[in-house]
Amino acid sequence: MSTTSVMPSPIHQPFDLDAWSRVRLAEVEAALDRWVTADVPQGLDHGAPAQLVEAMRYAVLDGGKRLRPLLVLAAQEAVDIQGAGGAAAGQHAALRAACAVELIHAYSLVHDDMPCMDNDVLRRGKPTVHVRFGEASALLAGDALQALAFELLTPQDGSVPETIQARLCASLARAAGSAGMAGGQAIDLASVGLPLTEVQLREMHELKTGALLQASVMMGALCGVSNVQAATALHAYGRAIGLAFQVVDDILDVTADSSTLGKTAGKDADNNKPTYVSLMGLPASRAYAQRLLHQAQAALDGSGLAQTRALSALADMVVNRAS
Amino acid sequence: MSTTSVMPSPIHQPFDLDAWSRVRLAEVEAALDRWVTADVPQGLDHGAPAQLVEAMRYAVLDGGKRLRPLLVLAAQEAVDIQGAGGAAAGQHAALRAACAVELIHAYSLVHDDMPCMDNDVLRRGKPTVHVRFGEASALLAGDALQALAFELLTPQDGSVPETIQARLCASLARAAGSAGMAGGQAIDLASVGLPLTEVQLREMHELKTGALLQASVMMGALCGVSNVQAATALHAYGRAIGLAFQVVDDILDVTADSSTLGKTAGKDADNNKPTYVSLMGLPASRAYAQRLLHQAQAALDGSGLAQTRALSALADMVVNRAS
Repeated sequence: MSTTSVMPSPIHQPFDLDAWSRVRLAEVEAALDRWVTADVPQGLDHGAPAQLVEAMRYAVLDGGKRLRPLLVLAAQEAVDIQGAGGAAAGQHAALRAACAVELIHAYSLVHDDMPCMDNDVLRRGKPTVHVRFGEASALLAGDALQALAFELLTPQDGSVPETIQARLCASLARAAGSAGMAGGQAIDLASVGLPLTEVQLREMHELKTGALLQASVMMGALCGVSNVQAATALHAYGRAIGLAFQVVDDILDVTADSSTLGKTAGKDADNNKPTYVSLMGLPASRAYAQRLLHQAQAALDGSGLAQTRALSALADMVVNRAS
Repeated sequence: MSTTSVMPSPIHQPFDLDAWSRVRLAEVEAALDRWVTADVPQGLDHGAPAQLVEAMRYAVLDGGKRLRPLLVLAAQEAVDIQGAGGAAAGQHAALRAACAVELIHAYSLVHDDMPCMDNDVLRRGKPTVHVRFGEASALLAGDALQALAFELLTPQDGSVPETIQARLCASLARAAGSAGMAGGQAIDLASVGLPLTEVQLREMHELKTGALLQASVMMGALCGVSNVQAATALHAYGRAIGLAFQVVDDILDVTADSSTLGKTAGKDADNNKPTYVSLMGLPASRAYAQRLLHQAQAALDGSGLAQTRALSALADMVVNRAS
């Protein structure tokens, strides 16, 4: 019997996702609190108007599971040992990327909740931004959050190499834009009440939520150095959990109540929106989510990366969450 | 008498702005037509949904004076002789920057025209985007245009050095965001019906329109190499014409008719918005615009740059335009 057979594989070592997340989330919350402000940036004459920043902070701070930031940080951790410019520089870049991705997510929720879109009044248990601040302010706050995301990726203090800044901007812009999140929302909008095939539904979700989740993983990977094998694996991982996230979202929309979700449950069904549950039924949707989880884990197993425990635990959390 | 005294200064040589603009605008229009598309970008699974791209193209193509792109290209021309990586590379970067700035401007108009903001139905002589495509599509098209601006600045084909990509993104993000254009719009929104001082009015406009006009100049300058003297001069030039543009806009709002403007005239006065004309009267507003023009020209004269004729002619056009 060789010694390797009695050594536990790294992937099966116990990993405390809650403890890991607590530390990372504290960093993310503090960074968001610091970076979403009305302070006058160096080299500019003016700060941001206080009332706009108030709406931006309301939209971003103190709410949400922060899944996307955690994916960025977990992916950076996976490639950190080979990090360019050292671990500390990679971690700082990843923290900026984590916040930038969250700002894009937050802006999309603000705009998505507006009367001309989903017309939702409740988000994370609080009145939505347009209910609290008015429609015009919600529109502007969302616009400003998108711009701020790219500000965070391009610090002028030398803390992130400009080559990394450029690649992070490239990745985020494509994930947010017409061939990503905004495009998926446009398909969603056009498909209300229409019968979609599973292929069409998957395509919509790959853009609407998948692109930004996948970009989170890839942006984390950009904050270190990964080889082709690792990058391909992280790409497959990101795609699988991106899809799984939406499948589970659709399941929770019909199985959870509003207070658990922190938003209006049953909304998609009421709006006659196509979902995985309406298309394939609840049991098959649950089985599909588990298949995607296995795909994500298999991708990590084949990545050649040692530190994938956080990514693995996050995939499990995405699929087996209750809200 | 020395020979220098009979040589005409470069700034006084005749310069045909119309001919110069025609060539540059043809490049910009062709580039926008090429880059605002539903094509599947390399390395992505999906293209953008056709209906979203249709609204984006409607908002961007075939309309507008393209002042911001022209400023980018004129500023790049001014620093081109010292261009990093050669003139052709600098010109390509500048063309991307020119289009990116125009996309930000176009998205701001789409959102600004929406019912929850200015509720305008006419823009450049055509129905506004929300009238033509609906509010939800207008919202998404604006969001996607902002993301596309950053896509254009970060080509993945090696045509623009990543250090330049990063600096262009940094400049554009700050000009578009809460301490720039979006911030100015928020102040504008909050100030309807309120008495503003000239200082407050100038601060609002420096953010709302000035920041992006100034960024256009500075982004053009980033596509070459300029020294501190030149950069300082271009900064002062950009600030002066940014302000002048808004002063003249306010003048035209009361002196021109809707068909000349291509948008609803007299709108600001009707909405009880503070303007330079309402604050200082028409004659003083006109004198102020001329003072700003002289400031802009003086900045160019002290820049140490030889090729500032296009920038000079654009400043003149900004102040003395009829629409």
